[in-house]
Amino acid sequence: MDCLKQKLVQKGLLCNNANKSKDILMLSKNQIKLIKSLAQKKYRQQLGLFIVEGVKGINEFLNSDVRLHTLYTTKSIFNIDKDLEVEISEVELKKISAFMNPNTALAIFYIPKPKDIDIDRLIVALDAIRDPGNLGTIIRLCDWYGIKDLVCSSNTVDCFNPKVVQATMGSITRVNVVYLDLERFVLDYKGLVFGTYMNGENIYTAQLPDSGMVILGNEANGISESITQNVNERLTIPQFGAHKKTESLNVATATAIVLSEFSRRSIET
Amino acid sequence: MDCLKQKLVQKGLLCNNANKSKDILMLSKNQIKLIKSLAQKKYRQQLGLFIVEGVKGINEFLNSDVRLHTLYTTKSIFNIDKDLEVEISEVELKKISAFMNPNTALAIFYIPKPKDIDIDRLIVALDAIRDPGNLGTIIRLCDWYGIKDLVCSSNTVDCFNPKVVQATMGSITRVNVVYLDLERFVLDYKGLVFGTYMNGENIYTAQLPDSGMVILGNEANGISESITQNVNERLTIPQFGAHKKTESLNVATATAIVLSEFSRRSIET
Repeated sequence: MDCLKQKLVQKGLLCNNANKSKDILMLSKNQIKLIKSLAQKKYRQQLGLFIVEGVKGINEFLNSDVRLHTLYTTKSIFNIDKDLEVEISEVELKKISAFMNPNTALAIFYIPKPKDIDIDRLIVALDAIRDPGNLGTIIRLCDWYGIKDLVCSSNTVDCFNPKVVQATMGSITRVNVVYLDLERFVLDYKGLVFGTYMNGENIYTAQLPDSGMVILGNEANGISESITQNVNERLTIPQFGAHKKTESLNVATATAIVLSEFSRRSIET
Repeated sequence: MDCLKQKLVQKGLLCNNANKSKDILMLSKNQIKLIKSLAQKKYRQQLGLFIVEGVKGINEFLNSDVRLHTLYTTKSIFNIDKDLEVEISEVELKKISAFMNPNTALAIFYIPKPKDIDIDRLIVALDAIRDPGNLGTIIRLCDWYGIKDLVCSSNTVDCFNPKVVQATMGSITRVNVVYLDLERFVLDYKGLVFGTYMNGENIYTAQLPDSGMVILGNEANGISESITQNVNERLTIPQFGAHKKTESLNVATATAIVLSEFSRRSIET
């Protein structure tokens, strides 16, 4: 990355922090373009960088092991290496922010390398989740329920998408999100594989172990057939009441209920 | 309403279905303005009408006891009184829709009167929920878990807000949503009142009855102090894992876990 950074500095695309004056900086058109390009997965992957906006969110990342690249701020209120800080005006901040009313700062961090998956603990797996809000909520839920590893099919929305980062409320710094060939991973996995379906065993009465893998499927189509072939236990969240006309639960809501139920059992036993 | 409708027809604000030609209609500027005004609570309340968009959503309402006012559609595919149907072009539909790519139809329904609350069953109460997506998800969850009555403080977002209607996926036709003075209602309520807090009893081990009321609070501030005074049991969804740094759960997610837990007990006993 440092070589890439050097190239970008040479092209005037990233500010050279070492040389920058401590006066409030005007961002060049190319700098703005580069920062805005990080809204797209292609450029995030190319540059290995992602964006975090707002004081609270940025502090969550600063207090984690995720490495800061540059912080653009209207107030020098962060406890960081000042060489990585660029003070800008509100007007400049608006130019690089995705928000109508940006909150004080925008930071660029290096995308961290995924860690090894602990296959002895409960793993959550996502098959083709498309909505950034859903993925963000699921990451937050994994954090709440102490799930360390979230494995995602490669066609699941990118967890460094700014909307996902925003929705996780900092939880993404504590959950190891790994993108992989989910079909292959499930096939090779030695533990019990659970999946959520409309017509499986009642989750409230099913046997749920402390470890294993639980898969949640795409918002419209559920878990794909090729993955279903390697699911050992089909689980269902039953409907209550007389009519039972509700079509389905949102996948983030279903994840909440599934993780609640797995976790509850772990304290019961 | 019929008197109001007549007045609106006289002013040219609503089309007079009785006289309308069966040709594809051009909507007048005033008609468009009126339909668009229903995005605002003030006008929905004044006219007693609300909007539903898309074939699936409209069919959910047509199959309920909610009364149709007018249906604007690009295709005559609905099984309804043809006097209430207005065929329009795609261009006209775009003018009245909130979506960039509207789906075939937009319907205006009469806001139904709230039904009596069954105080012998489990009631869900919301204190100042502001986000339409959260309310929509909570209504869908109530429907899934067979909760008949959802009572909302008068400063909770309006359930006939188009974003809420959309997010409920038809569930709003099956859940009785009642807006009231929640403080007063809780004070007068004779059953057990549960509330969700950060520092209450572990919900997984607490005694949870089949009836009673469970309150969920505002996204930022939780349950207000004046209501908390009349809460009998403070419940908490515990965090799992080592760090316990997750700030909080989203209120819709918390509702999912709370309703899952209350419902599970009801089948256990």
